[in-house]
Amino acid sequence: MISYRNLRVAILGAGSVGSQVADQILRHGDELSSRIGAGLDLVGVAVRDIDAPRDTEIPRELLTTDAESLVRGADVVIELMGGLEPARTLVLSALNSGADVITANKAMLATHGPELFDAAAQVGAQLYYEAAVAGAIPIIRPLRDSLAGDRVTRILGIVNGTTNFILDRMDTVGESLEEALATATALGYAEADPTADIEGYDAAQKAAILASLAFHTRVPLDAVHREGITSVSRDQVVAARKAGYVVKLLAICDRIEGENGGVSARVHPALVPLEHPLAAVHGANNAVFVEAEAAGPLMFYGAGAGGIQTASAVLGDVVSAARRHVVGGPGVAESQHANLPVLPISAVTTRYQITLEVADRAGVLAAIAGVFQDHGVSVETLAQTVIPAGEGHAGDQPAATLVIGTHEASEADLAATVTSLTGNAVVHSVTSVLRVEGL
Amino acid sequence: MISYRNLRVAILGAGSVGSQVADQILRHGDELSSRIGAGLDLVGVAVRDIDAPRDTEIPRELLTTDAESLVRGADVVIELMGGLEPARTLVLSALNSGADVITANKAMLATHGPELFDAAAQVGAQLYYEAAVAGAIPIIRPLRDSLAGDRVTRILGIVNGTTNFILDRMDTVGESLEEALATATALGYAEADPTADIEGYDAAQKAAILASLAFHTRVPLDAVHREGITSVSRDQVVAARKAGYVVKLLAICDRIEGENGGVSARVHPALVPLEHPLAAVHGANNAVFVEAEAAGPLMFYGAGAGGIQTASAVLGDVVSAARRHVVGGPGVAESQHANLPVLPISAVTTRYQITLEVADRAGVLAAIAGVFQDHGVSVETLAQTVIPAGEGHAGDQPAATLVIGTHEASEADLAATVTSLTGNAVVHSVTSVLRVEGL
Repeated sequence: MISYRNLRVAILGAGSVGSQVADQILRHGDELSSRIGAGLDLVGVAVRDIDAPRDTEIPRELLTTDAESLVRGADVVIELMGGLEPARTLVLSALNSGADVITANKAMLATHGPELFDAAAQVGAQLYYEAAVAGAIPIIRPLRDSLAGDRVTRILGIVNGTTNFILDRMDTVGESLEEALATATALGYAEADPTADIEGYDAAQKAAILASLAFHTRVPLDAVHREGITSVSRDQVVAARKAGYVVKLLAICDRIEGENGGVSARVHPALVPLEHPLAAVHGANNAVFVEAEAAGPLMFYGAGAGGIQTASAVLGDVVSAARRHVVGGPGVAESQHANLPVLPISAVTTRYQITLEVADRAGVLAAIAGVFQDHGVSVETLAQTVIPAGEGHAGDQPAATLVIGTHEASEADLAATVTSLTGNAVVHSVTSVLRVEGL
Repeated sequence: MISYRNLRVAILGAGSVGSQVADQILRHGDELSSRIGAGLDLVGVAVRDIDAPRDTEIPRELLTTDAESLVRGADVVIELMGGLEPARTLVLSALNSGADVITANKAMLATHGPELFDAAAQVGAQLYYEAAVAGAIPIIRPLRDSLAGDRVTRILGIVNGTTNFILDRMDTVGESLEEALATATALGYAEADPTADIEGYDAAQKAAILASLAFHTRVPLDAVHREGITSVSRDQVVAARKAGYVVKLLAICDRIEGENGGVSARVHPALVPLEHPLAAVHGANNAVFVEAEAAGPLMFYGAGAGGIQTASAVLGDVVSAARRHVVGGPGVAESQHANLPVLPISAVTTRYQITLEVADRAGVLAAIAGVFQDHGVSVETLAQTVIPAGEGHAGDQPAATLVIGTHEASEADLAATVTSLTGNAVVHSVTSVLRVEGL
């Protein structure tokens, strides 16, 4: 029944994902072969150190430190080493030799995506990357294929498990950011250097990948506005819940209509209404909420990371790539036909919640309202709480906390409003400025 | 840039989905063409009555009552008429002529799937059906492609919007089944004859499709155990919530391991723990919860029905099919290589919650416990509430309500237990027997 020659598969990297992928191919090769219509030969696994400990047992004769030689002659190359180099050079070398490449490397895709897609297109090779965003959750294929006949208007994604775990601990256990980060590190959810996660770099890479795919437009990484979670305080999280929100780090991709329209991608902490499906995404889980013109709202939920989970996404791509070798055909191609303008965050409009400490005396509310009005920002809700004497920032003067919810406003107008508020005599401090998403 | 000849597309049926698909092709043809690499010519829409009112405007010259002629000469045939005949004959005719077919017809797939897939395989044509299950939610493609390198062990699906709407009303508004059905009918969520929905026929068709796909095994419709929601009472829903559950009509596909293993598909109302993601699926929405060996739990959520939503899924398939015409290639094929035994519901094990009205006197608990023990069903929880005098079934005799939660037990053992309980002198009545899923 199987008439096609066996396919030669090479794996680059044997970390938590690579070792699981090797293990699955070695153990479930027969099952994979019957889905493909050809056998899979794992011809080698490139590693830096042959003797390093691994999560699964890989026969010693498959291990090699010579990645460049391994890549030559493979039909399918699975790049799981991460980082920009030598990953980029090896992937280019594989594509140029006509091999299909499967990668989970979001940094490489977000940084060198266009170069890699161009190289693939030139020789008719394919670049698959389901595992690069949201681990095991199928999101690349649904965006690329299932929604190919629809128009995606918006993506709200919880795409970084570490930060979701930390924010969830702050919300549900009441830990501070530092405590929650320590817990995440102790449980293995955060790396020794957590910068890429908590500063939003990881999420920004995924936002660039998702926006490029969903909007058929190349969205470069440096066009993604990025704010991490380091400024999020326990007070903000507690106040958010009281007001019916939860704080999430979101990757947001927007299609902005109109004359100066285009697309925008950004990453920042945001208030999400408790009744929104994303609010129920706990722990280190990921979820991607997609709005499309015809399909309406969709959500894809699951484990965002983990070696074996990510291996599932990689192996799905292996089967797709291998089937294409056997039966021939279109495979996947980058879609950039829309080529829309990529807009800066100043072009984005959203709602805001601003918390101020103000002097508690006559005329203050009117003065504050005037500041918003001057900048064209429309106030939707306003709640004032008197601060007990002596507890305010300005010592013994009567003070109050003001929580203001705005209608949709532009980032530019909001920023100008906050600057004015900061300089205003009746404002003791601007305690918190958070965007509200998902309303 | 577009060098391929235009593709000829025929639509069969112009109901709520068909008219939206026609509208999208007519209005967004350019955008679709640039994703495909070739133009799409809508060559005709087959209808029963040219003059019937439609949701969208279709140029009169495209309408025809001669479906058989329309199918001949089309590259892509979109079957949206529903029902078994003439849909089956027309689809066979299209496939045999080499056209790719896209269908949302779950009844036809669940009943005639093997015949249609065989016909497609014979001529190398493709049969796409993303829209047949869970409307706009991408579920077919993720199961077929994204999880192709994984092993699906279980699917729990809310795949019928009408029954989810009714059960949700009973839970959140406190309506009776009859009242909730009337509300669903008034709001257009239920058809004039709601039998297919409330008796679980629609969900059973989808269960057969999902199980066949996920387990690479043909699961015939008549192997799907089916119970609808007509026996679900408001009392059961109220008691469920008190106990931390919500009642959902689930389509459940199980891979059962072991010597007598195989696969099983069933549809019945079930208690779902409130903390399970499926418990938060409200209104007429759909969600499919998938467990895979490597990926772990995944959930796909969105609108399950609606003309324009379903049209999104159809158009995703149109783009896939059309791209295959342009670039050639593997497309999709039925996967039935696993060919596992399809097991009856008696082979399934799950947990149960049984509510009894019993005599309230010494020795009753021991007698009941003995019945469970005799049939090898292990009791996990037991809660007894005394029924006020005169309110029980047996008149003035002291009576109590007993709610028993079991450990995993087989359907066969549970059925025998219930029969014994019914015949037992201390049992006034078996008030409720519900399976518990998602624990």
